[in-house]
Amino acid sequence: MERPRHQGMTKNTYMRWRLPLVCLLWEVAMIVLFGVFVRFGPEADAHWEEEKREMNLTSDIENDFYFRYPSFQDVHVMIFVGFGFLMTFLKRYGFGAVGFNFLLAAFGIQWALLMQGWFHSFKNGKILVGVENLINADFCVGSVCIAFGAILGKTSPIQLLVMTLFQVTLFAVNEYILLNLLHVKDAGGSMTIHTFGAYFGLTVTRILYRPNLEQSKDKQGSVYHSDLFAMIGTLYLWMYWPSFNSAISEHGDAQHRAAINTYCSLAACVLTTMAFSSMLQKKGKLDMVHIQNATLAGGVAVGTSAEMMLTPYGSLIVGFICGIVSTVGYVYLTPFLESRLHIQDTCGIHNLHAMPGLIGGIVGAITAAAATEDVYGKEGFIKAFDFTGTYQTRTPSVQGGFQAAGIVVSLLMAFAGGALVGAILKLPVWGDAAAENCFEDDIYWEVPEDEESDVYHMHNPDKPASP
Amino acid sequence: MERPRHQGMTKNTYMRWRLPLVCLLWEVAMIVLFGVFVRFGPEADAHWEEEKREMNLTSDIENDFYFRYPSFQDVHVMIFVGFGFLMTFLKRYGFGAVGFNFLLAAFGIQWALLMQGWFHSFKNGKILVGVENLINADFCVGSVCIAFGAILGKTSPIQLLVMTLFQVTLFAVNEYILLNLLHVKDAGGSMTIHTFGAYFGLTVTRILYRPNLEQSKDKQGSVYHSDLFAMIGTLYLWMYWPSFNSAISEHGDAQHRAAINTYCSLAACVLTTMAFSSMLQKKGKLDMVHIQNATLAGGVAVGTSAEMMLTPYGSLIVGFICGIVSTVGYVYLTPFLESRLHIQDTCGIHNLHAMPGLIGGIVGAITAAAATEDVYGKEGFIKAFDFTGTYQTRTPSVQGGFQAAGIVVSLLMAFAGGALVGAILKLPVWGDAAAENCFEDDIYWEVPEDEESDVYHMHNPDKPASP
Amino acid sequence: MERPRHQGMTKNTYMRWRLPLVCLLWEVAMIVLFGVFVRFGPEADAHWEEEKREMNLTSDIENDFYFRYPSFQDVHVMIFVGFGFLMTFLKRYGFGAVGFNFLLAAFGIQWALLMQGWFHSFKNGKILVGVENLINADFCVGSVCIAFGAILGKTSPIQLLVMTLFQVTLFAVNEYILLNLLHVKDAGGSMTIHTFGAYFGLTVTRILYRPNLEQSKDKQGSVYHSDLFAMIGTLYLWMYWPSFNSAISEHGDAQHRAAINTYCSLAACVLTTMAFSSMLQKKGKLDMVHIQNATLAGGVAVGTSAEMMLTPYGSLIVGFICGIVSTVGYVYLTPFLESRLHIQDTCGIHNLHAMPGLIGGIVGAITAAAATEDVYGKEGFIKAFDFTGTYQTRTPSVQGGFQAAGIVVSLLMAFAGGALVGAILKLPVWGDAAAENCFEDDIYWEVPEDEESDVYHMHNPDKPASP
Repeated sequence: MERPRHQGMTKNTYMRWRLPLVCLLWEVAMIVLFGVFVRFGPEADAHWEEEKREMNLTSDIENDFYFRYPSFQDVHVMIFVGFGFLMTFLKRYGFGAVGFNFLLAAFGIQWALLMQGWFHSFKNGKILVGVENLINADFCVGSVCIAFGAILGKTSPIQLLVMTLFQVTLFAVNEYILLNLLHVKDAGGSMTIHTFGAYFGLTVTRILYRPNLEQSKDKQGSVYHSDLFAMIGTLYLWMYWPSFNSAISEHGDAQHRAAINTYCSLAACVLTTMAFSSMLQKKGKLDMVHIQNATLAGGVAVGTSAEMMLTPYGSLIVGFICGIVSTVGYVYLTPFLESRLHIQDTCGIHNLHAMPGLIGGIVGAITAAAATEDVYGKEGFIKAFDFTGTYQTRTPSVQGGFQAAGIVVSLLMAFAGGALVGAILKLPVWGDAAAENCFEDDIYWEVPEDEESDVYHMHNPDKPASP
Repeated sequence: MERPRHQGMTKNTYMRWRLPLVCLLWEVAMIVLFGVFVRFGPEADAHWEEEKREMNLTSDIENDFYFRYPSFQDVHVMIFVGFGFLMTFLKRYGFGAVGFNFLLAAFGIQWALLMQGWFHSFKNGKILVGVENLINADFCVGSVCIAFGAILGKTSPIQLLVMTLFQVTLFAVNEYILLNLLHVKDAGGSMTIHTFGAYFGLTVTRILYRPNLEQSKDKQGSVYHSDLFAMIGTLYLWMYWPSFNSAISEHGDAQHRAAINTYCSLAACVLTTMAFSSMLQKKGKLDMVHIQNATLAGGVAVGTSAEMMLTPYGSLIVGFICGIVSTVGYVYLTPFLESRLHIQDTCGIHNLHAMPGLIGGIVGAITAAAATEDVYGKEGFIKAFDFTGTYQTRTPSVQGGFQAAGIVVSLLMAFAGGALVGAILKLPVWGDAAAENCFEDDIYWEVPEDEESDVYHMHNPDKPASP
Repeated sequence: MERPRHQGMTKNTYMRWRLPLVCLLWEVAMIVLFGVFVRFGPEADAHWEEEKREMNLTSDIENDFYFRYPSFQDVHVMIFVGFGFLMTFLKRYGFGAVGFNFLLAAFGIQWALLMQGWFHSFKNGKILVGVENLINADFCVGSVCIAFGAILGKTSPIQLLVMTLFQVTLFAVNEYILLNLLHVKDAGGSMTIHTFGAYFGLTVTRILYRPNLEQSKDKQGSVYHSDLFAMIGTLYLWMYWPSFNSAISEHGDAQHRAAINTYCSLAACVLTTMAFSSMLQKKGKLDMVHIQNATLAGGVAVGTSAEMMLTPYGSLIVGFICGIVSTVGYVYLTPFLESRLHIQDTCGIHNLHAMPGLIGGIVGAITAAAATEDVYGKEGFIKAFDFTGTYQTRTPSVQGGFQAAGIVVSLLMAFAGGALVGAILKLPVWGDAAAENCFEDDIYWEVPEDEESDVYHMHNPDKPASP
């Protein structure tokens, strides 16, 4: 039991046997399941030469690897460095931010390969994986990283692993409903990743509500250098978002278009974020919280429509609006959610992912409904919305309706799933910290006793020196 | 009005209405102009299937996206993380460095898409954009980031936005003169980006000369961790420079060659920078300022010639020389420029971009003039210099002459443009800070009151606690 | 002579003439050798159009540049940011970590281009370079960066340059023996890069044993932010390792497969590292040293086998084991090596590179020995192991034997080479620091006199203020 400062508030945060047990158990499970189910897809298998002949491909460059691997690596950076460092803004929770994000994502991608594989790449009893599966697994984990943002600093690593297990499962189910049953387009995941991930996380944090969290209020802020570390995360998310939204689009024009739309939306978003960050503050100064987060809302909000013919100016408009919505959310909505609805949202994912995700779903529905053969060309129209087979007769307006339905389904899954998982995480066995120890690395980490911490304690003479 | 320390020196740095106004106005203008002018190019448009048939392309991999997108992402990282973090070396200006760079670049790329689009991608009244346009927009903004380096810490965000508006415009005009009228080669932008950007910025900072800048001398240095943050910027610029110089070269050998030449030049540059950094200091110690900057001069200096048959050893020689020139510049020239010519160059862009840019232009002219059909092959020769159509009869030595003319034009545009823009920025309406408040984030940013700042003030007991 | 604290212990660390001399001499040598030997390969040469016709290639996209350049850039980031920042964990050696790594790597890649070129790309008296040579040069330097980890903080920059010269040479010889004479597969370098590099470095540090190193014990730890800087290095190594192991594999399925296997191995490794980091510590807390390092062991350990049909679950198993081995190594073996065998291994490369490298070699031998035509397909089998020409009749089990021989050769080369180079570095002319000045930047660097260092000294009142 670490650092019992207030009598009666102490909790057992001792991880020594519980964390290893969970990690090892789950990794062993992964190995067994991979052993039974996972094999290389035809483009990664040594039989590729035969496949090439069969597919009538003349060059190795036609291997999907060369279409998608650069985008995959960008997405990979977004998940591990992007989300990881974005959350290091807290003054004494940098290890937890980047380290726990690392842990949950490393587990999550394995479980996602299985879950998504069963739904989408299952053939003759085997899951056949290729680079697209890796991207999708990263995407799935992205939604967990988003949810992690809401509960950052308030949960134990075990809780995060439990949450990852369930959220990945639910993500895969929701994704299956949207993509396969509703035949919805959502290449950049406005609905499946952002809307689902954010409302899931918000529901979880609502259920884990901590009434005494103001006891660790002093640790909920940033310090100068932690804000710069967070900017590393922000910029990598911002720069690579065009890769994120285009990574699994159709080869050719769709990937190309998705990147351009996202580039435009993000650029516009920066300007309105800066504008409102200054405008909403009495002294007119810019707030790093907004710059770190709201500048990214434009990427979230074109997640569904980026591969469609949204057009560059359409993207600018979406980015313009979302920079405003997100920044206003940070200033007015986050305090309201906390005080009235008891939703403690550490990173403000409601502003960065939930609202822009919803907007993204709606923009996608409208863009799909407005599609015409004139704009897309006859072939392009069919290809863009995959109006083939069963869906041959679906019209744009019907597609728009199904897109809208996708938003609703994602919301319902998020609320129901979040409530369930929140309830599980509330069980008193997972080793989360007491309210006054939240947002503090040294509960779960060996923290170097450095000059800075000396200084820290020097300025808090009433506190006992840390162990 | 923030922190009036000295009577009579106070300036109105209140941004609350001015900054939002400028941001919103310009973003609205972008939306309108994009709405009127910008559309997807044929490789990003949903009509791509038809285009493919017309162009007789058999595979989606022939889409320019797959030739250039990885390079684009590298360039994107250089602009936002590279330049942004390179400038975080100042002890209390990290937010401004990375944040204002973010702001000006996000606006600049939009305006550059338009300006460059009108000159180079205009067809039937529309600007048709693809991945090459995104790269070029990033390039254009690169020249603004360079100029920002000269005035870092001394300007308001509004001034930066105004400067970006004008500089992007002038950049596009200068680029048009060089590439289209003079038919000059400059794929990595030694002339268009570095020479132009640097002398533009130096002219601006000359005109904005602040006689009392020594009042903020204590803030012009670095601290230990800010130097490490800056190294993130340095390394990303250094590592990705091969992508920068090859990003818009012809498909195939030219891209390949440009990357190799740049790789070689940069490697050599590191060794001479280290050598002279140690040699020019009495104690023989290395200076982080040199390592952070002069190591990059090799990339600047092969910006024109990298795609030519400069050869690896030619590149090494160029890098060798530029590491020396740049380091010597930091030691001897920067103080001279400040004391004698009243050019206050915060980041030393004269050493990193201006001189190496000039060298790069000259090396390009020589390499072009020395080209022979023997070295390039008959086809390669024509392809490398685009000696087709009107230019069918141009000889290498004439090309060399035009290349040299390109340097002169870039310089003239930089001086004239810089003088004009400097004069505009001198107007007392833009909210720049007083001399003693320069290089300080808390004029324009909400800065966390952290331990470090406590320490800071503790060691400056004569200063009042910050607000 | 800097900061002579203890009489009789002072050493001449004055670099002013020695470092510049070495840097300039070696760079001049590079220029001369490049001038004599290095030319563009056919895919980077302006004669590429003719080459294309000869090779019957229809598109520029068939240029090797487009198959490998994205991977090259990822590897480049691993060498300069990955290794550089990984070593910034020390509280006052960040400049040395990232700066000296920069120096030695920039020199090393040039020398490696020559050494490897003579062995592998020599044609008609010229070394013909292309993107694959750049990757291989980066790989070769990777082994030097690894060895640097063992002696981090205890050597002068001149020693590092001398070591680089010799180690690159020996690396190329060893690589030639393995790849050409033994016909061994080692695309990700478990043997050539990790086993060789690590045991080489460990032998060097053994010979440079410093009995009084505890005098600088206080500087051998990290501070809070230095641990976060190190995580930047860790994550970039971790994320881009799939590119590392696949960068020079055969086009098509082999590159694809290598990336997937590495991705899987690394993911599993994170979980067992976390598990054992917590388990092996009495308080059950996680240790950043393990997270920063042991999480990468999975990438090392599939370096040989990743391009083979190791299968995803095989990769998980390898990662699972290596996370454990590496973490246990940090806890028990590193102290043992230091106290008993007098091997002072600053970064613990024995745990991250030596042991996992050995495991990687063994896994590779087993995977090769177990290969069947059934699993690989007839063509795939021949292609995967290059069983053509002289090696047409080699069987998998013979191949396995040769793979095992490759491990032994790499070890012998490492021990012999390390002993030789260690002896050379022991000469008292290279300007290394006294034991009490180890792990301190201000021996070789101008260090800003910042708040933090004030604080530092404030808490060490018995020490004199630094110069």
